[in-house]
Amino acid sequence: MPLPTFSGVLVPVVTPYDAELRPDTARFVDHCKRLLDAGADGLAVFGTTSEANSLSLKERLSLLDALVEGGVPAAKLMPGAGACALPDVVDMMRAAGRHGCGGVLLLPPFYYKIATDDGLFDFTAAAIERAASPNLPIYLYHIPPVAQVGWSHALIRRLIDAFPDTIVGIKDSSGDWSHTHSLITAFPGFAVFPGSESFLLQGLRAGSAGCISASANVNVTGIRRVIDAFAAGGGDAEQARATAARKVIEGFPVIPALKALIAADTGNEDWLRVRPPFRQIAPQKARELLSALTAIGFDVGGPGVLQDKASG
Amino acid sequence: MPLPTFSGVLVPVVTPYDAELRPDTARFVDHCKRLLDAGADGLAVFGTTSEANSLSLKERLSLLDALVEGGVPAAKLMPGAGACALPDVVDMMRAAGRHGCGGVLLLPPFYYKIATDDGLFDFTAAAIERAASPNLPIYLYHIPPVAQVGWSHALIRRLIDAFPDTIVGIKDSSGDWSHTHSLITAFPGFAVFPGSESFLLQGLRAGSAGCISASANVNVTGIRRVIDAFAAGGGDAEQARATAARKVIEGFPVIPALKALIAADTGNEDWLRVRPPFRQIAPQKARELLSALTAIGFDVGGPGVLQDKASG
Repeated sequence: MPLPTFSGVLVPVVTPYDAELRPDTARFVDHCKRLLDAGADGLAVFGTTSEANSLSLKERLSLLDALVEGGVPAAKLMPGAGACALPDVVDMMRAAGRHGCGGVLLLPPFYYKIATDDGLFDFTAAAIERAASPNLPIYLYHIPPVAQVGWSHALIRRLIDAFPDTIVGIKDSSGDWSHTHSLITAFPGFAVFPGSESFLLQGLRAGSAGCISASANVNVTGIRRVIDAFAAGGGDAEQARATAARKVIEGFPVIPALKALIAADTGNEDWLRVRPPFRQIAPQKARELLSALTAIGFDVGGPGVLQDKASG
Repeated sequence: MPLPTFSGVLVPVVTPYDAELRPDTARFVDHCKRLLDAGADGLAVFGTTSEANSLSLKERLSLLDALVEGGVPAAKLMPGAGACALPDVVDMMRAAGRHGCGGVLLLPPFYYKIATDDGLFDFTAAAIERAASPNLPIYLYHIPPVAQVGWSHALIRRLIDAFPDTIVGIKDSSGDWSHTHSLITAFPGFAVFPGSESFLLQGLRAGSAGCISASANVNVTGIRRVIDAFAAGGGDAEQARATAARKVIEGFPVIPALKALIAADTGNEDWLRVRPPFRQIAPQKARELLSALTAIGFDVGGPGVLQDKASG
């Protein structure tokens, strides 16, 4: 198995929209650069938090081009390539391969809930063969609460055996630590990223690669501190702070809440926009969110949006 | 509320593939024409049975063009227009409107399972406004066993009130007769199509518009007989035959099974192909399917694939 290309904290970047609900490319590129400057190790653009499935294939391809043309290093990019339709997956993988992205994050085809491991293997194998991008690593994306269809241990084993140079890791958004732990144990050398920083420190201690977390859109600095403190032999205090911020955000509809925090920080209310079926957060709810964060010592205005006053 | 544009038996047409798993346009057009010749009142192309979400937007648009150019009357077409991404829905609706299709079948955006009625209303309203196809009727597509996200009674009421000239009916693939019946009762004048011919006769007696059923790909003739017999005051014997055939087919993975029957009928094994995550039926299973149908008096070779020897 080759070395995974990513570790640390990756951000499933939220997607900003203009007044016509088209992706706002300039603001997207700016937010991505800001996240890297604030300490992100990679950008998992076009994930669930990015409303990726609410974007057309054309929009995703165009945003990926814009990121690379805008100076974001392709090696830092792990674009979501999953879709229900095989040709869409192939197109995204080819684009990621052409740009030299560090990898792609692969959601399984999620429409048919009766998909079998055999069928998902066929799908993944067909995508890899057709994309013909041998240097493009694939990270599987396991998020059963949303996609319903997931990657079983038996299927992961089969994919690693069949494509040892390609299938290098997984994002586990099961929300179930015992599942994340079982992946770390079952697949040594595989890069396992829990989908929440709440499991970051226990993950690092068990051998995970880091985390890919929605709330890193606004707290990459705080999450980075956990990783740095772990490297220095500690991390408990930093983990407690990161978990506290996440718990507050989780009390709100997460995507609209993250956008509200970026809007408050940048003073640009255009950030509030989401695509249906989501609705933007109500002004009163946004104020409650900010108050709840203030109450535990967080303010907006740091390098990665949130500033933790308790951590300086 | 305007009169719905469809009634009777509609077929969610299966999609044939070539050796590269690309849609086989010529075979698709031929199968569609055969179904109309055999008595189908409409073709709900690009539904769940059509593997529509396994097709790219471009493939769906291209197949729709080919049907109309190939001489299939647009008024007989109810293409699936639903997708997770609003721009894809708008593109499909615009194409259907431009061709003068009899309507579209609208699956809700199905990725985010936390979608609210408010968010689904926003999505549908935005699609209708952006598509700007005022003469294009919309039939809602309710299939919670697969899409998980569905159309609630409260939301249907709100959509009918907001778009009385557009929202004219629903396909109910809940598989739950009491739900179908509640729709017929709650929305007089609304065209309610159960997603299975098993509910056809009781639906017609209660005021439904007909049915849109996967198995109509191979038994449109038998389903047509139920409708004709109902019009003549009967239907029980015909319903029993249609239900018997369906029950056999339901005992197998439905999409591969339907394709196996068309392959057996046409002598063209290319029909067996499915896109992953599906797998084509095993030869032994296909033989079991044919035997089970033979055992109850059905053979392949009728105008609509199956021939019911008991009904002549």
